[in-house]
Amino acid sequence: MPILIVGSLAFDDIETPFGSSMNTLGGSSTYIALSASYFADKIQMVGVVGSDFEAEHFQLLHDRDIDTKGIQVIEDGKTFRWAGRYHYDMNTRDTLDTQLNVFADFDPHIPHQYQDTGIVVLGNIDPELQLKVLTQIKKPEMVILDTMNFWIEGKPEALKETLKHVDVFILNDSEARLLSGDPNLVKSARIIREMGPKTLIIKKGEHGALLFTNGGIFAAPAFPLESIYDPTGAGDTFAGGFIGHLSRCGEVTDMELRKAVLYGSAMASFCVEKFGTEKIAALDMLEIEDRYDSFLELSRIDV
Amino acid sequence: MPILIVGSLAFDDIETPFGSSMNTLGGSSTYIALSASYFADKIQMVGVVGSDFEAEHFQLLHDRDIDTKGIQVIEDGKTFRWAGRYHYDMNTRDTLDTQLNVFADFDPHIPHQYQDTGIVVLGNIDPELQLKVLTQIKKPEMVILDTMNFWIEGKPEALKETLKHVDVFILNDSEARLLSGDPNLVKSARIIREMGPKTLIIKKGEHGALLFTNGGIFAAPAFPLESIYDPTGAGDTFAGGFIGHLSRCGEVTDMELRKAVLYGSAMASFCVEKFGTEKIAALDMLEIEDRYDSFLELSRIDV
Repeated sequence: MPILIVGSLAFDDIETPFGSSMNTLGGSSTYIALSASYFADKIQMVGVVGSDFEAEHFQLLHDRDIDTKGIQVIEDGKTFRWAGRYHYDMNTRDTLDTQLNVFADFDPHIPHQYQDTGIVVLGNIDPELQLKVLTQIKKPEMVILDTMNFWIEGKPEALKETLKHVDVFILNDSEARLLSGDPNLVKSARIIREMGPKTLIIKKGEHGALLFTNGGIFAAPAFPLESIYDPTGAGDTFAGGFIGHLSRCGEVTDMELRKAVLYGSAMASFCVEKFGTEKIAALDMLEIEDRYDSFLELSRIDV
Repeated sequence: MPILIVGSLAFDDIETPFGSSMNTLGGSSTYIALSASYFADKIQMVGVVGSDFEAEHFQLLHDRDIDTKGIQVIEDGKTFRWAGRYHYDMNTRDTLDTQLNVFADFDPHIPHQYQDTGIVVLGNIDPELQLKVLTQIKKPEMVILDTMNFWIEGKPEALKETLKHVDVFILNDSEARLLSGDPNLVKSARIIREMGPKTLIIKKGEHGALLFTNGGIFAAPAFPLESIYDPTGAGDTFAGGFIGHLSRCGEVTDMELRKAVLYGSAMASFCVEKFGTEKIAALDMLEIEDRYDSFLELSRIDV
């Protein structure tokens, strides 16, 4: 099933205790698309970049068979830029600089040939834009949405309106507590699922992820890595693996949703092993399936 | 296999956002013994109490077939008392008062008939006393140790000396980071296992637990509870369920260690549902096995 991804493309300056990476390709939709590309046949990106987004950046996406015709290039514009520094424990970071640039006026226009897409992924952008995207899609089989604290605090009503049209909602634990107003994640999940999305994934970083569906709760572990070099994009990479696996399923059952969470977790575990998109742009299916098997082994009980 | 438990018996005053419980029976060895009693044939406690430890308290332990002959009663002494208050998110607490009382002079003496025990559980007490206990046991099949920040900071050398004689070490994530000096739990586990214990369990509260053995890593989820009334004793209750399951295994394989972690998790999930020992003093095996099955379901993947 084709996947349409709407979100940010960016250049990031990243500092971690283990090194730094300047001017590296990033953005929510970049990570989602690269990660999903190992599973999905057809991936279409919609976004906006400036003229500093060069042929080599498009090439990196084309090398993974990603359709970039929906990416608008603003001549004389500059691509969205983000700079951040991670702390020693890698769980917290400071944003050092944000330059929205061409992203400030992003007005997503879905090309005619994309309007019949099956899976729509709304990366972390203004919820009003996310809703605007949905009005342009004919009849999506599945709508997946990601968001962040910034929108939960800044545009809660627009976000709640958009959530009414969402099938799968992905957010992290602190965002879930913020949106629900409850510190307990199980209660938070109940409150958020009543806002619309029947499938909810709460990411917990180094503690794995929880999947809530009508069928119950699934707890996925995180991969026990000794060294995390750069957490940037790990959440989007998770979303990409999750969506990628669903796109290749004929039918989306509860068990396939569980497996999709593990594939997402496997992809995220690769992402953090190198800076930026370096690792997830150059994987092969054998190592992905190996990592997935390691996830199965992590919680295996012979009954 | 008989289990010998050495640790504290106490009276606790507990305040949580959901209520309070005054003068309630507690202490590390109380929780461990009650929890293990559902699995093990023979449980022997060694500890010290004052004359305020009344017949009803002994009765509660005897009702679970726990042998209390190793508990010294100090006439005119007062039992160890602890008072604490949990915060809104239930993950942090303030100690309001600690009165060691008779526990200040605790000098564990292992009765002759206990010296052939198979499993020795050293609850959270001074590591010098833990070592002193071990010198009195003939040839234990398995030594299990719990500790806390207080001893890691206060008596690190004594703790490390004791750890050389320990088979299974149970501690929580912040304690593991403190002891190892490394923020990464996988690295922490490697460093701590080099101190002696080949089997290490790192408890992560609402995020479950990690088991490290020579055979690899097992990630156990926590039970997704909507309401946690009182986390007091949950860690000790975990240890009790874990040890209880091992005591009924003929052979301690890697898979039985994994199952033991899930039984420990199941017991801990009951503990927090009521104040103090109220819930874990009155369970039956049917509900324990039901909860265990729920844990299996939480991370089930059909391959």
